[in-house]
Amino acid sequence: MNVTLRGRKQHFRTVSFDAEHNRVVLIDQKILPHTFSLAETEDFRQTALAIKDMTVRGAGAIGAAAAYGFAQGCRAFRGKSLERFEAHAQKVFDTLAGARPTAVDPVNAMKQVRNVMSQGETVQKKQDLALLAANLFAEEDVEHCQAIGRLGAELIHDGMTILTHCNAGWLAFVDVGTATAPFYEAQAQGKQFHVLCDETRPRSQGAILTAWELAQQGIPHHIIPDNAAGHLMQRGKIQMVITGADRVLAKTGEAANKIGTFTKAVLAKYHKIPFYIAIPLSTIDWEMKSGMDIPIEERNENEVLCAWGKLQNGKKTSAGSACVRVANPTSHALNPGFDVTPPELITGFITPKGIFKPKELAAKLKKFRA
Amino acid sequence: MNVTLRGRKQHFRTVSFDAEHNRVVLIDQKILPHTFSLAETEDFRQTALAIKDMTVRGAGAIGAAAAYGFAQGCRAFRGKSLERFEAHAQKVFDTLAGARPTAVDPVNAMKQVRNVMSQGETVQKKQDLALLAANLFAEEDVEHCQAIGRLGAELIHDGMTILTHCNAGWLAFVDVGTATAPFYEAQAQGKQFHVLCDETRPRSQGAILTAWELAQQGIPHHIIPDNAAGHLMQRGKIQMVITGADRVLAKTGEAANKIGTFTKAVLAKYHKIPFYIAIPLSTIDWEMKSGMDIPIEERNENEVLCAWGKLQNGKKTSAGSACVRVANPTSHALNPGFDVTPPELITGFITPKGIFKPKELAAKLKKFRA
Repeated sequence: MNVTLRGRKQHFRTVSFDAEHNRVVLIDQKILPHTFSLAETEDFRQTALAIKDMTVRGAGAIGAAAAYGFAQGCRAFRGKSLERFEAHAQKVFDTLAGARPTAVDPVNAMKQVRNVMSQGETVQKKQDLALLAANLFAEEDVEHCQAIGRLGAELIHDGMTILTHCNAGWLAFVDVGTATAPFYEAQAQGKQFHVLCDETRPRSQGAILTAWELAQQGIPHHIIPDNAAGHLMQRGKIQMVITGADRVLAKTGEAANKIGTFTKAVLAKYHKIPFYIAIPLSTIDWEMKSGMDIPIEERNENEVLCAWGKLQNGKKTSAGSACVRVANPTSHALNPGFDVTPPELITGFITPKGIFKPKELAAKLKKFRA
Repeated sequence: MNVTLRGRKQHFRTVSFDAEHNRVVLIDQKILPHTFSLAETEDFRQTALAIKDMTVRGAGAIGAAAAYGFAQGCRAFRGKSLERFEAHAQKVFDTLAGARPTAVDPVNAMKQVRNVMSQGETVQKKQDLALLAANLFAEEDVEHCQAIGRLGAELIHDGMTILTHCNAGWLAFVDVGTATAPFYEAQAQGKQFHVLCDETRPRSQGAILTAWELAQQGIPHHIIPDNAAGHLMQRGKIQMVITGADRVLAKTGEAANKIGTFTKAVLAKYHKIPFYIAIPLSTIDWEMKSGMDIPIEERNENEVLCAWGKLQNGKKTSAGSACVRVANPTSHALNPGFDVTPPELITGFITPKGIFKPKELAAKLKKFRA
């Protein structure tokens, strides 16, 4: 998408590859929204570190970063021995897979690259195929998000205000995003609408990332406290909700996503407001039988007890990100990272292949199952 | 309530009066939870400033601060002319009433003091009566909160986890509080229970004030992000919700309270969890016909875009409160301060005179109407 730098619009992808210098190029999400900068990794170990330290985050984006990181590592091999190449490739694979051990996307992405690579008969050929496959993975991610955008934009009408939670935007994918894709497409079609971004405590991805994205694309928006959505729905100020998801169960139609998503779904149901979840096919879990089986990560309590941002000192602003302890220093916090929204609260899933009700999902998408 | 200072438990009220030095004594709420300190005002103008700058906040507490400030101002008058005394008293009244122009408690409290004072026939007698009446107001505030505590504690059983939102604790009243009063009474009765404090963004009164209060009294508690209550209810980890209110409509049973209260009520209803609102009688609005008529204050957007706390610098901690800009610097925020919970979501109101359903409220309490 476009980013305005020194008054000039430039196009960037969240994850891309510099084939000439064999570098993975990432938008550094650790320093957004106050600084926009690209991070270039010089080898696969640096790419793994960038995935681990959340320079790059979001399902699609870490998938692509791993795919490119795998190609990067394979391309760095010098020699002609297939046996030694395979051992090296395995080391690259394991290093990148270990960067975010609970995430499924990097592993799936690298498997896809490895499958294509297996068709090559020489080291050189395998190295070329690795890059080709990584590029293919990234392109497919973009195309799926664009398809979600086209379908989702049909739900957006002039005058609407739409709520979104957390960040399922282009920063979470290679480009375009899922929950935000309908906004970008509707804007391209000239539709007039307004977006509300939940702050999304404790990590504030809505206030930091989604708001930055929307501001860069010139989409009218406001940040709201997570506490305000109920009131705004009650006063008729929200007409639709679109979020992303981390995992959707084909067998039940349940959706796991950032903590607070379920609350917004309950509020939408109470106010009879449509609630959509936008997902690529890779988010679907075909096997799990119940949302109660989804492990809910209990994250570090300091995310709740503290807040991070750019230090404001009266009217002066100092550089860099600072941490402040907001909460009572002798109290502790609970910090569940995700929640599970049941199918009866979900109007539909916006997928690259169509918009489906939770009960239809498995039947309609099984032919695309990987 | 008790506060532990340098290892020793001491008893404090949020608002008290030093008659010898004619000073209003306030717990300085601007610097909690990181520093506990008493602020003493030397004259009624300083008391008005303390109300204005939120050194003291909360309905009952600012009522008592105004009552004492009014007595303080009247007692500072030197001379015997009743006419000049009345003119002086009016100036004191207006100054204190102007400190928080939208709040109703300071004005009602001062009217009560003025009524008693009118019985005095000399300046000296009126000055004595003013202090007597202010003390009476403060005592009544404490007694009402204690009655709420006794009634509310009957709802608490061993093993329960109870959610509260914002701060309707002893810091918002002269002592004991409303939503927190049942916790303190249940603790005194030896009941075993756990409290969850909503962080309550954007001003984080739950994480700052309620958590501090509960920690001081040794009540087991955790802070949770506002986004987490839905998930915790879904997993069976919350058995009851108790909040305070800023205004309750006798005619409809609607309750206006801190933004996010309505959301918790919708969640409680969805999960069939009892939702109680604890209020003193002064919170009841006998005239208003609809919650839609309650003006919802739109507060400064910086409360949402920023966070305040004690600066953490690695493992070192510097003194003082710092502000960090969390949100994207080119985005704006909506910041409605309150929301309105409809009667169908409220299990009951815990009042000093009994626990009543929204529909019973007016009939049961009309004999106590001031």
